[in-house]
Amino acid sequence: MRAAVLRNARLLVDTLPEPVPGPGEVLVRTLACGICGSDLHALKHAPRMVEAARESGLPFTLDVTRDVVMGHEFCAEVLDFGPHTERALKPGARVVSMPLAAGASGVQAIGYSNDYPGGYGELMVLSELLALEVPNGLATEHAALTEPMAVGVHAVAKARLEPGDAPLVVGCGPVGLAVIAALRLRGTEPIVAADFSPARRVLAERMGAHVVVDPARQRPIDGVPGLLHQLMRDAPREARVVVAGVCMEDDRIRPMHGINKELSLQFVLGYTPEEFAGTLAAIAEGRIPVAPLVTGRVGVDGVPGAFEALARPDTHAKILIEPWR
Amino acid sequence: MRAAVLRNARLLVDTLPEPVPGPGEVLVRTLACGICGSDLHALKHAPRMVEAARESGLPFTLDVTRDVVMGHEFCAEVLDFGPHTERALKPGARVVSMPLAAGASGVQAIGYSNDYPGGYGELMVLSELLALEVPNGLATEHAALTEPMAVGVHAVAKARLEPGDAPLVVGCGPVGLAVIAALRLRGTEPIVAADFSPARRVLAERMGAHVVVDPARQRPIDGVPGLLHQLMRDAPREARVVVAGVCMEDDRIRPMHGINKELSLQFVLGYTPEEFAGTLAAIAEGRIPVAPLVTGRVGVDGVPGAFEALARPDTHAKILIEPWR
Repeated sequence: MRAAVLRNARLLVDTLPEPVPGPGEVLVRTLACGICGSDLHALKHAPRMVEAARESGLPFTLDVTRDVVMGHEFCAEVLDFGPHTERALKPGARVVSMPLAAGASGVQAIGYSNDYPGGYGELMVLSELLALEVPNGLATEHAALTEPMAVGVHAVAKARLEPGDAPLVVGCGPVGLAVIAALRLRGTEPIVAADFSPARRVLAERMGAHVVVDPARQRPIDGVPGLLHQLMRDAPREARVVVAGVCMEDDRIRPMHGINKELSLQFVLGYTPEEFAGTLAAIAEGRIPVAPLVTGRVGVDGVPGAFEALARPDTHAKILIEPWR
Repeated sequence: MRAAVLRNARLLVDTLPEPVPGPGEVLVRTLACGICGSDLHALKHAPRMVEAARESGLPFTLDVTRDVVMGHEFCAEVLDFGPHTERALKPGARVVSMPLAAGASGVQAIGYSNDYPGGYGELMVLSELLALEVPNGLATEHAALTEPMAVGVHAVAKARLEPGDAPLVVGCGPVGLAVIAALRLRGTEPIVAADFSPARRVLAERMGAHVVVDPARQRPIDGVPGLLHQLMRDAPREARVVVAGVCMEDDRIRPMHGINKELSLQFVLGYTPEEFAGTLAAIAEGRIPVAPLVTGRVGVDGVPGAFEALARPDTHAKILIEPWR
């Protein structure tokens, strides 16, 4: 199959062997797959991500010297079944799935695996148990946004919001926009969002933020390195800081800021199966507006160029890969 | 009055003017006052503490070029009243109090103030509203431990403990010991405590820890600088890290550890008035064992020596100052 491949810290297009579904697995054809900010990090910092995962004790085995087909935000079409499958889904059915697989060597992250290619390629293998059929009538490109939107739903669930809380969303890339959508879904008001990029501020409004600010004008936040330190310094008493999204750099913080104001930092990752399914339903019912997020579409050959475009935060939110193009 | 004074980053004994109770205030004679770890930090790092408080937006005005009489863990005897006082307490009554005063220039922290001397001196002025009478029969030296024990009660309240949680107390200085006592008060089991010091491990057991470990043998924690980083690296998934006590150094953390395991960091400070009063009652009723904590007693002249002794963690837990000696 044709795929955009992460090989030796470079992204290139090649023809790879087709994946074969094992017991309990489904072979699918990728219809659309979003490029995640984590993928941008992985291109630059894959060894460091693996090291941090190992230090954290995660069961995450990735050999960065071997090929990886990334892509974990996908909508796909069922083609065929492996052994020991229930086959409740029919060939041709469109599905989304949490990007996890139970491989022979343990749990694997689809899209960050040497064994399970992600949606940057034409074909994938999914666990039958995790595949959710896309409700009839929901556009494929919107269904593909289930995964990133679920990240926002989960982050908001972990924020332990209480009546009267006024959340500030710092950074309106795809994760921040998903958080805004999830806050809006929950009925939180007001939602305040901040980003240096004018285009992202427009998207923040379209996703449901009530107040959008330019930190260059309204609050001095200097940039990503040191952001946690600045947030702790500037946060009000008893604020809860939720850290969503990948953050590769170490951060120097001043614990006295946290102590003096009794701050809480909650780091979040992923979502629960319930949150994932609930997000798909919310998108299908129009309760999460995903249309503004899709700002580009490319085939497999366009992936390297899309990565370059995404490095400039003012141009794009979500670029979808459509490997069949 | 005689007092141990923080002057130009040195601790010395001098005779100072007697404080005068203002409206709503009570003049008291210090009976016993504990030396807090924060006081040890203040001797070395007062300018940095003031800077961090200012950065945090705290209403905390301390001029480190002027005299400070520290001491905020006290039991005292009522001597006299300022104007506009209710005088429900009688002269001779023993009291404890949250170390706060409403001075002319705003809220002041008794013991970290240029205007309100703390318990390192013979006399103090307290807010009548905050003074709590010591229940009959409770020893003065035990009542003086209300403040540090309340810190533990508050930290445990902020930990959002759930059934099945097994807390690990890292560091068994006075704050860690107070946390152990508060966990025991709550009925939590098992309580696991870790400290490099054999003497502190013995105290941890006496305060109620069920399991006490030497991190040098059972888990590699290298020391205070970098402790937060190590805890985040080694903590299990979804652990909640509660940071109690003063921590002057900046800390470099690896956010990916927090993200990978969805950790939460909760910084805590102080206690509520209800927690303070509840702690006094729990001590009086014997539900918090404070007797093991008092490892030394000095007069005002002994304060500089006590600070030196407390720098060696294996000798003491709490040294009480008895300025009347």
